[in-house]
Amino acid sequence: MKKIKNYVQLIENTLARQDWDREPAQLYEPVSYILHLGGKRLRPALTLAACELFNGPVEEALMPAMAVEVFHNFSLVHDDIMDAAPLRRGQPTVHHKWDLNTGILSGDAMLVKAYQYVAMVEPAILPSVMRVFSQTALEVCEGQQYDMNFENLPEVAEEDYLEMIRLKTSVLLGCALKLGALVANARPQQADDLYQFGVHIGIAFQIQDDILDAFGDPEKFGKQNGGDILQDKKTLLMIHALQKAPEIEELLGTAADPQKKVEAVKKVFENSGALHHARKTMQDYFDQAIQYLEKAGGNPEIQGELKAFANYLIIRDN
Amino acid sequence: MKKIKNYVQLIENTLARQDWDREPAQLYEPVSYILHLGGKRLRPALTLAACELFNGPVEEALMPAMAVEVFHNFSLVHDDIMDAAPLRRGQPTVHHKWDLNTGILSGDAMLVKAYQYVAMVEPAILPSVMRVFSQTALEVCEGQQYDMNFENLPEVAEEDYLEMIRLKTSVLLGCALKLGALVANARPQQADDLYQFGVHIGIAFQIQDDILDAFGDPEKFGKQNGGDILQDKKTLLMIHALQKAPEIEELLGTAADPQKKVEAVKKVFENSGALHHARKTMQDYFDQAIQYLEKAGGNPEIQGELKAFANYLIIRDN
Repeated sequence: MKKIKNYVQLIENTLARQDWDREPAQLYEPVSYILHLGGKRLRPALTLAACELFNGPVEEALMPAMAVEVFHNFSLVHDDIMDAAPLRRGQPTVHHKWDLNTGILSGDAMLVKAYQYVAMVEPAILPSVMRVFSQTALEVCEGQQYDMNFENLPEVAEEDYLEMIRLKTSVLLGCALKLGALVANARPQQADDLYQFGVHIGIAFQIQDDILDAFGDPEKFGKQNGGDILQDKKTLLMIHALQKAPEIEELLGTAADPQKKVEAVKKVFENSGALHHARKTMQDYFDQAIQYLEKAGGNPEIQGELKAFANYLIIRDN
Repeated sequence: MKKIKNYVQLIENTLARQDWDREPAQLYEPVSYILHLGGKRLRPALTLAACELFNGPVEEALMPAMAVEVFHNFSLVHDDIMDAAPLRRGQPTVHHKWDLNTGILSGDAMLVKAYQYVAMVEPAILPSVMRVFSQTALEVCEGQQYDMNFENLPEVAEEDYLEMIRLKTSVLLGCALKLGALVANARPQQADDLYQFGVHIGIAFQIQDDILDAFGDPEKFGKQNGGDILQDKKTLLMIHALQKAPEIEELLGTAADPQKKVEAVKKVFENSGALHHARKTMQDYFDQAIQYLEKAGGNPEIQGELKAFANYLIIRDN
């Protein structure tokens, strides 16, 4: 993934060149803070990759790539408020480091900044760029709303869960790719196929994330197993287990011995077939993603990079 | 202002045709709620007026006009959270009727919807439309930040106050007008003059609002005098009085007899020259606004309507 690494570096350089040292500092300092907390910059790298896949000028994809990264960080700032999260990437979230109002208003400013970046494309493609960007932004809001709704529901249907993760996390990958394809003047069908590659790989990634949270190697995955289990989170594993082995409900709720709860729930995930089902569903989405990628065509070298990237997302140990 | 009234009606009809009956309902119901709480629809009416001023097709200005109205309501929803306001137009604010998360996320969705509306213009003008809309949106965020900052400052310079109200409330009037001018393919200088008309009339309006809050006829103004005074709000009156009659500080803070405090502070506003200064400043901005309007040119009938509208904004008794 040498190319992808180059794209990431290009994004880092571009981010470093942005001037957030603006007034009022109370508004822009938090923007600079969250954007420099790190993150893998994979979404904007996808925009550059998609542009080069169709032999477009990578430098023209830089601003829409920035839009994707700034939009992503906007959604993190507001989601962290809604989820009452104190930490993000090991550091205080914006509303914890400053306060609620700062989190809301700096987030708003970032959403506007994202639109400023995305509008810096050739006028000829601006209408299509705006269409996919706004539709995606709205869908991400819808996904966050469904995610919050699901917390208060006794049960969630599998298809509703898959639709939620499509909206909340996957369409932005699709959008990142499509923006690059638009900059490169790819044919509409190719741009749409690449969009579907992103959406499917995003869903596969999220399911894999659910699986790793329970079954990943804690050392490689970088966090303790079972965070989702201890929160009774309605992941694909839990949704399937609740259907096939309703007795799992007895294990839910606050546990006297958290480690014991995690082990017991994992056992049900295995015995009920939930783990197998999640792995199979993940693999199905992954396979479809690769099919879309191949259908999209383009430069074989970059296509190979994107395949390696898809594999990395799924197999990743961290 | 027969034409302006027609424009307002056109906006109401267009608003009524929008379908907010979408899923997830938790996200879109609050959008529909705030948009139907009323409001005078003056900002979107300005977009239509500006379009017709330059003989543009009013129906093509409807979507950017909607963008202005939806953006304005987005800012109300988020500002009401930041200001911890329980009521808006006599009804519960979104975060009070629902909750904080609903206020944040529905607000975000409205900002995106505003961009969807504003992007529905002819591709040829989309880049300029995006430029003025995003710049305005960012400035409105900056204005809200300055307003919050000022609450925690012992004193505020007059020019900083004027810049704050320019950003927080006036640039959106300028933007509303400029969008209409862009739709009508007005010359850039005309569009900019009309923008300045909006900004100056907005500042005059805000100063007049400060004056009416203290000295307006309660029956005509529709609310009790002295709300700003009881909150020790740093209006133009207070800023000037603090400079010219520093002894006013003794009157600040919680009052045993609120009515007595209001009367005492008003007396200082009058005797220190603060009231005279505010009236003069307001008039100066008003006069400059009219000069910009005349410089912009265009259809004399609509120019007359906009002049009547400017007078209405300043003289309004409600």
